[in-house]
Amino acid sequence: MSELPAPITHAPSAQELEARLARVRAGMAERGLDVYVSFDPVNIYYLTHFANYVHERPFLLVIRQAGLPTLLAPGLEASHVRQRSVAELEFATYPEFPAPEGENWFDVYQALVDSSATVGVESAMPIGIAMRTPGQVQVHDVIDQVRLVKTPYELGRNVHACQVVEVGHRLLLENAAPGVPEVALFGQASSAMVGKIFAEVPDANPLMCNTKAAVWPPSISHDPHQVPAITLPMEQGGPHVSITTAQVNGYGVELERTFFLNSVPEAARAPFAAMLEARAVAYERAKPGAALAEIDRAVRDVIERHGFGDRILHRTGHGFGITGHEGPYLALGEDGVLAPDMLISIEPGIYIPGVGGFRHSDTVWVTATGCVSLTHADDTLESLTFERAAAG
Amino acid sequence: MSELPAPITHAPSAQELEARLARVRAGMAERGLDVYVSFDPVNIYYLTHFANYVHERPFLLVIRQAGLPTLLAPGLEASHVRQRSVAELEFATYPEFPAPEGENWFDVYQALVDSSATVGVESAMPIGIAMRTPGQVQVHDVIDQVRLVKTPYELGRNVHACQVVEVGHRLLLENAAPGVPEVALFGQASSAMVGKIFAEVPDANPLMCNTKAAVWPPSISHDPHQVPAITLPMEQGGPHVSITTAQVNGYGVELERTFFLNSVPEAARAPFAAMLEARAVAYERAKPGAALAEIDRAVRDVIERHGFGDRILHRTGHGFGITGHEGPYLALGEDGVLAPDMLISIEPGIYIPGVGGFRHSDTVWVTATGCVSLTHADDTLESLTFERAAAG
Repeated sequence: MSELPAPITHAPSAQELEARLARVRAGMAERGLDVYVSFDPVNIYYLTHFANYVHERPFLLVIRQAGLPTLLAPGLEASHVRQRSVAELEFATYPEFPAPEGENWFDVYQALVDSSATVGVESAMPIGIAMRTPGQVQVHDVIDQVRLVKTPYELGRNVHACQVVEVGHRLLLENAAPGVPEVALFGQASSAMVGKIFAEVPDANPLMCNTKAAVWPPSISHDPHQVPAITLPMEQGGPHVSITTAQVNGYGVELERTFFLNSVPEAARAPFAAMLEARAVAYERAKPGAALAEIDRAVRDVIERHGFGDRILHRTGHGFGITGHEGPYLALGEDGVLAPDMLISIEPGIYIPGVGGFRHSDTVWVTATGCVSLTHADDTLESLTFERAAAG
Repeated sequence: MSELPAPITHAPSAQELEARLARVRAGMAERGLDVYVSFDPVNIYYLTHFANYVHERPFLLVIRQAGLPTLLAPGLEASHVRQRSVAELEFATYPEFPAPEGENWFDVYQALVDSSATVGVESAMPIGIAMRTPGQVQVHDVIDQVRLVKTPYELGRNVHACQVVEVGHRLLLENAAPGVPEVALFGQASSAMVGKIFAEVPDANPLMCNTKAAVWPPSISHDPHQVPAITLPMEQGGPHVSITTAQVNGYGVELERTFFLNSVPEAARAPFAAMLEARAVAYERAKPGAALAEIDRAVRDVIERHGFGDRILHRTGHGFGITGHEGPYLALGEDGVLAPDMLISIEPGIYIPGVGGFRHSDTVWVTATGCVSLTHADDTLESLTFERAAAG
């Protein structure tokens, strides 16, 4: 079995970011690209440790096959960009948005890119920026592809982020009781997570830190992407579904459990068991070389065999890395296979209106030979049924 | 003088959203567009009251000249979309991202749009989605243009949001003292704002609520877009610059002040006075028909006359509405003029390394004859110099 990476909280070294850039350049070469332009702040953060939020003033990272990448930023951000970025970069700025003729972002941008070059851009690049991009523009998600396989440093960051969500998740399960409102659970769990992040991560950048902690009580747990009212109370019984996510200075993970308060409704037993079995099949199959679509197929087969095939709302899982939601997707329609050092969620779900939702989710590391969950919480029906007096 | 709109906290009516849609359709007709497709979650919220966050599963709003708009969403979100949206809509869903051949989002999308149509898309639409858009695709920011002028309902929402930032801002100014760290100021002000939002807005959607509260102490106030460490302490003297923003169920505003603790350094007096004078000129000129570029020119002229022309880092202001940062821009490079019921910031700034930053910002309503600030706080040097014992 592979050894669990140690948690890391310090900023990446320039060498780490150079190695990432080298992989991006290899991806550019494979696709015949002279230049690659990144707009997605997640990809820019991955290569520079600099975080921007998207507003009307664009930030663009221009990568050529040789030489330092150029980060184009609003003049207003010049010192901020220099202060936060780790990688060795060249900087270009424009005075304002919009600026007088000849001084706009696109004027500066167009001078940075050779108009005879073959230029790759992300599928997430806004068309308004893509249209201003010189050269032969092609859409290739080169950086997103590189991000699929984590470096040892990244894994260490995600391991630490898993410690953060475990703190929040434990509080959700400890404080849930019939009558306790969403907002109380959120407040306790997220304060603890935010506190831990800022205590342990010396250069934590608020733009890249984010926590969520909530419990879907049985009245809504059949509807996993609902946005609950903050006054929504926990209930007797279940299934309740806890959700804890954290992006810890740019490294995102999640931990979720299906649990019960005081009693387990009869109608909840079979779907809970089916979910556990589907989940076990996913863990068994998640190893290097496994086709992503086939894992999802096998998981769906289990759920269908238990008679809940029409109660599936989503794929088996998604990737983690800089964000808490990215490729690879463990989905019927996904090409490709798992590889060592991918990081995925395993979270098959069953959703029955009138009964509720059934889903555990963990942040799972694909090792050389199989997979290991980096998040830890109980998972059986017995261990997830809590005796709790009703609040107030 | 125009009467101040009363604060509004309830959800928009279907009629309000229909009237917005009618303006969008008029904009489409002007540009010869048969169909308009919106990806930007802000624009979708503006027309539907439904909020999504952007991830790999796209949400798209397809608007034709007649008939109900169609909201394309992941199947997983079907019930959530129906529950939160106010406008009358048709719904289309796709099963998952990615999905097996023929069932992907783009398969469903392409069936919704006539391939012989002239189709407008936003400049913010990702090129990966624009490329999958059928018909003759043209880039026009039709909804963004409509959003520039607020409806009475919108103004009422923004007036309420201004009451929220005033609560947070008052706490920032009351609690600032030498030695108090950023995180303490943030915690007090943002708890109060979040509490007010959820107490007063019955259908508050956490995805569309957001508050920021911070003070840039003199060590960094010259650098307005820095992201400070949460442990950064307030100092003796100043200039400190407070920043309070809120997006209150989708209506964004801001309030900022330059203030001093116990003493005013001699070097701060002239730039503070220049900033006040520049600001007064902006208020004087901000009225219907005023060219946006000329307001910024006049503001810069004042600052230049005071000898701080090389200490300007940004334009005079930006618009508010659904977001806290949108058009119109009071900037040298902006075409166009102010119109009644636009909502803008007036925030000329002067930034001197070694001395600090000087900026007041308010959320300002352009009336039929001039402009009125919807946010209220003291603005003179005397009223913004506080006697405060150093913390602990």
